[in-house]
Amino acid sequence: MLSERTLVAFRSVLGADRVFDDDATRALYACDETPRRIEPDAVLFPASHDDVAAIARIAFEHGTALTLRGAGSGNVGGALPAPGSVVVSFECMRRVLEFDPDNRLIVVEAGIVTEEIDRIARGAGLFYPPDPGSSAYCRIGGNLAMNAAGPRAVKYGVTRDYVLGLRGVTGNGQEIRTGCRTTKGVTGYDLTRLLVGSGGTLALITEATLKLLPAPEAVATLRVCFASNRDALDAVSRVMHQPVVPCALEFMDQRAIDVIRPTGAADDLPAGTRALLMVEADGATEDLPRQIAALQQALDGAGLLETKSGFEAEVITQLWAARKSLSHAVKRIAPLKINEDLVVPVSQLADFVDFIDHTAHTHRLAVVSFGHAGNGNLHVNLMVHPDDADEMDRAHLALDAIVLRTLALGGTLSGEHGIGTEKRRFVDREIDPATLALMRAIKQQFDPHGLLNPGKLFPD
Amino acid sequence: MLSERTLVAFRSVLGADRVFDDDATRALYACDETPRRIEPDAVLFPASHDDVAAIARIAFEHGTALTLRGAGSGNVGGALPAPGSVVVSFECMRRVLEFDPDNRLIVVEAGIVTEEIDRIARGAGLFYPPDPGSSAYCRIGGNLAMNAAGPRAVKYGVTRDYVLGLRGVTGNGQEIRTGCRTTKGVTGYDLTRLLVGSGGTLALITEATLKLLPAPEAVATLRVCFASNRDALDAVSRVMHQPVVPCALEFMDQRAIDVIRPTGAADDLPAGTRALLMVEADGATEDLPRQIAALQQALDGAGLLETKSGFEAEVITQLWAARKSLSHAVKRIAPLKINEDLVVPVSQLADFVDFIDHTAHTHRLAVVSFGHAGNGNLHVNLMVHPDDADEMDRAHLALDAIVLRTLALGGTLSGEHGIGTEKRRFVDREIDPATLALMRAIKQQFDPHGLLNPGKLFPD
Repeated sequence: MLSERTLVAFRSVLGADRVFDDDATRALYACDETPRRIEPDAVLFPASHDDVAAIARIAFEHGTALTLRGAGSGNVGGALPAPGSVVVSFECMRRVLEFDPDNRLIVVEAGIVTEEIDRIARGAGLFYPPDPGSSAYCRIGGNLAMNAAGPRAVKYGVTRDYVLGLRGVTGNGQEIRTGCRTTKGVTGYDLTRLLVGSGGTLALITEATLKLLPAPEAVATLRVCFASNRDALDAVSRVMHQPVVPCALEFMDQRAIDVIRPTGAADDLPAGTRALLMVEADGATEDLPRQIAALQQALDGAGLLETKSGFEAEVITQLWAARKSLSHAVKRIAPLKINEDLVVPVSQLADFVDFIDHTAHTHRLAVVSFGHAGNGNLHVNLMVHPDDADEMDRAHLALDAIVLRTLALGGTLSGEHGIGTEKRRFVDREIDPATLALMRAIKQQFDPHGLLNPGKLFPD
Repeated sequence: MLSERTLVAFRSVLGADRVFDDDATRALYACDETPRRIEPDAVLFPASHDDVAAIARIAFEHGTALTLRGAGSGNVGGALPAPGSVVVSFECMRRVLEFDPDNRLIVVEAGIVTEEIDRIARGAGLFYPPDPGSSAYCRIGGNLAMNAAGPRAVKYGVTRDYVLGLRGVTGNGQEIRTGCRTTKGVTGYDLTRLLVGSGGTLALITEATLKLLPAPEAVATLRVCFASNRDALDAVSRVMHQPVVPCALEFMDQRAIDVIRPTGAADDLPAGTRALLMVEADGATEDLPRQIAALQQALDGAGLLETKSGFEAEVITQLWAARKSLSHAVKRIAPLKINEDLVVPVSQLADFVDFIDHTAHTHRLAVVSFGHAGNGNLHVNLMVHPDDADEMDRAHLALDAIVLRTLALGGTLSGEHGIGTEKRRFVDREIDPATLALMRAIKQQFDPHGLLNPGKLFPD
């Protein structure tokens, strides 16, 4: 329980209007996108790097555990409060500190909404490539913590690839600055990328220097229907085997299409459609027809039922309708979604989806799979009723089997959601004891009292 | 001095034919591309990961310092033996352990020659983008240690961007495995990128899983002559401000052109050429004319004297002749090259080169600058006579001024060569004490006895 003395200390540096311990606020910050709720002892709203540094120093002095929070839009409990902790919400830190289009970079505070970065960049003919599904409301700090990605990762890479440097505060209140402002730099250890994806367990990231790219002139989209999952995923392999790299290569499995049928979003798919690929290309307007032709040629093969292409915004939106309707539709089929974010080598995708189908059938579960097939990154959603103990048992058995298969196929536990609280029991199946021990030793250097996001990322 | 007991231990695990302590071998491994020579006590030639693990365990037990060596082609003393150390040469570890074109990856031992990776990849329509100048003989292990790059970095990024995972051995003989085999992965801390660029101070990297890209169909080249450095560097800014990203954007300053005149390689440059840009584009054959037209448009401006373009191998080779002749020609003007590898924001390049010229003039020094202008990465070469004490003093004064200006402009000490022994005295001018202390603390976790590449990377 947070002592009055600690609250007073926080209030003395932040002001009373940035420190809340009332029931309503604590309830509001008790959860992220995972189903569990744990109320924090208080919620702090720093307005600057210096505020964060002051919070970290007080926390270090008083032994107060901190839970770091962007938008709370994560899927793995990364922002779920550790019991007895204080939430540090970055939502008031959303300034652009510098925008330098000549050097293709932007310096932002950790609480800025990701889409806002992209919007500003586009005003100068640039763009910010990482595009998590939650772009419209997630915060860059959360993206940095989890190394977020999205459809464009297949061509442009992930958050990690766009971070030039960071400013932050360690668990003992020390300010650190990592990286540089240039696109090349190899002075000292790469602490920037050590912090990216560390789930807020090493430092409170306060500011980030991000790399921008020239915005592509235009986009064109293909919606491609297949007779089976395997037909679609074989096509994914063919696409990834030729030189034109699409800027999206998204897959929806048979079950995902079934899920959207009641919404009407599948009405214009041809009969017999049992898998769908969304393939997008971007670049110079005059070069897009060449790219699309090359992609169509690669996609063509067994089980292809229909290809529709779109070069204009309106048509493109219409083609994406089926895919975009999925997130909402899937929630209707069961109250709880156990959302995995698994990655396997692209050439193993078809076998992996077969295995998932087989496992779902064996355990009598509704499993909806879709995701970023060009990266081998599949969101495997086990749709369950938390009150049905038997179903929950079967779900956990299925989940174990799917995770083990992922690792056996040379895959990894998470592509873009991170580990948080929800995936950590699997971490030591992927990472060997010596390597994991080194990670713990590194954690100890940054956060000697274990105050930053305790109970996250590491297995017990 | 290495004890007989330690030598016997090394021989017992490696065999006598992989452990050398004779004078000739020790002399051969006494230096890299820096002018200093320090003979190691012995040289070891492991043939496998297990050999390296055994070496590390013996070194840990006996307190033997190890100097890690790829081809010894580094510019900063990274492979210069620490006094009293044993060199671990990776040159016998050059196997391809796996080549998986379907998943665009290759697994190699640390001693493979970088160009060989690219050659194998191209056999399957792929390529390995990082292209350090020493590709034909440098080893991937050295590239990983220094985060090597090259001209293509402006479009494709650096070594760090192509490493999916690593296998290695820490300073206490523990095997570690980092990263994954897929293009996305966020399970645990990113130790992969912590090791890349760490200059062999954290672990002996034995094997690397590298990402490959589809090989571009064709290349086209522009050689562009300008009336002044500033005219050329303003053109660089314009190129980096439009959407077509070249796959090389190389700069040669006025002095560099003077240097190649005696070789005849400047004979076909128009009169009044005082700076040169080499601009290359790659991609689909039918898209190259569009790219080249866009680049020409961006390059056009004040001081442009001549543009020559080449779309065929023979012409391209001829266009590159001036640039390629530089490395040899520069060695003729003075016996010692103090080779800096500085980076500034692209928009600051013109001012930076002005400052270098001014400093060279003030200190009566011959300074030749060229490099990867699209990344703001300039190789600044102070050409000196080591026996001329007065000139050496002036060179060190000039160097200090240039480095300080680099940092003042928001730049960094090294873009691709690393820190090694030669740049470490400047490191604490770039990195603040708290961040540097964390780097030292991390080093301590990986290498508790400080046996891996002692005397490198960190300032005294």
